[in-house]
Amino acid sequence: MDTLLILLQSLDGASIAKAAIAIGAGIVVIGAGLGIGKIGESALKSIARQPEASGDIRSNMIVSAALIEGVAFFALILLIVALFV
Amino acid sequence: MDTLLILLQSLDGASIAKAAIAIGAGIVVIGAGLGIGKIGESALKSIARQPEASGDIRSNMIVSAALIEGVAFFALILLIVALFV
Amino acid sequence: MDTLLILLQSLDGASIAKAAIAIGAGIVVIGAGLGIGKIGESALKSIARQPEASGDIRSNMIVSAALIEGVAFFALILLIVALFV
Amino acid sequence: MDTLLILLQSLDGASIAKAAIAIGAGIVVIGAGLGIGKIGESALKSIARQPEASGDIRSNMIVSAALIEGVAFFALILLIVALFV
Amino acid sequence: MDTLLILLQSLDGASIAKAAIAIGAGIVVIGAGLGIGKIGESALKSIARQPEASGDIRSNMIVSAALIEGVAFFALILLIVALFV
Repeated sequence: MDTLLILLQSLDGASIAKAAIAIGAGIVVIGAGLGIGKIGESALKSIARQPEASGDIRSNMIVSAALIEGVAFFALILLIVALFV
Repeated sequence: MDTLLILLQSLDGASIAKAAIAIGAGIVVIGAGLGIGKIGESALKSIARQPEASGDIRSNMIVSAALIEGVAFFALILLIVALFV
Repeated sequence: MDTLLILLQSLDGASIAKAAIAIGAGIVVIGAGLGIGKIGESALKSIARQPEASGDIRSNMIVSAALIEGVAFFALILLIVALFV
Repeated sequence: MDTLLILLQSLDGASIAKAAIAIGAGIVVIGAGLGIGKIGESALKSIARQPEASGDIRSNMIVSAALIEGVAFFALILLIVALFV
Repeated sequence: MDTLLILLQSLDGASIAKAAIAIGAGIVVIGAGLGIGKIGESALKSIARQPEASGDIRSNMIVSAALIEGVAFFALILLIVALFV
């Protein structure tokens, strides 16, 4: 028996980078999900406790969630840039 | 049996760096999400308890969340710089 | 059996350093987020409990959060220095 | 069996050190964030409970937070020294 | 069996040591932050409960926090010595 196994493993770095960008995008969403989820959760509980303060709570919920949204979008744009650079 | 295994692994360093930048961007968002999420959560619960203090709570929420937002954006800009350097 | 394993791993150190800087920036934001988040959270809950002490609470919140902000920015500047050195 | 393993790993030590300095800076901020965050949190809650003791609480908050700030900055300066040595 | 292993690994020990010093500095700050943070937290809560005992609480807070501060600074100085030796 004479086996000739030539394994050319061309695992180039560009693919590793692309893989990590995909993982990174997932981590971004975990971060944003935890943060905005916490805010949304307490918004709903708070409206349930004080239905008359519903307008105030809604506007504050949007402001604080938008701050997390901003960081998350900026990180995702960074990932898109990293994809092409 | 005669096995000839040629393994050419061309994993270059620049891709490892790019990969870590992508993961780092995700970690930044987790940090910002946890921090701003905590602040936003307590803002909404506090407004539900004291609807008349809503203006005070909102301005303080924005000030403290902006501090985290500042660090997070500075870190993301550092990552963009690291991407091109 | 005749195994010829040629492994050419060209992983240079500068990229490892850049990778760690990216991860480090993420860890900095987690630290700042946890700290300032805790301070902001209690500031808002405290204002809800004692709306008349709102001015005192705000100034103390900014002082203590600024201390964390200072360490975090100093660490990020250290990372930028490490990027170019 | 005839194994020819050629491993060209050009991972120099200076980069490993730089990598650890970056991670270390992140850990420093986590330490300072946890500590000052805890102090700031209790300062604000205490002011809400005893608004008349506000001056005392503020001065003590600054003293104890400054102790952590001192250790954190000293550690960051140590890291900068380590970067150039 | 005929193994020819050519390993060009230029990872010198001095860099590994420097890396560990950097991580160690971060761990020192976590330790000091947790400890002094806990002391400061309870000092401030105690002043809020017993404002008339404020002087006593402050002096004891400084004594106990200074003990942690002392150990932390001594450890950081040890790390600086280790950096140059």
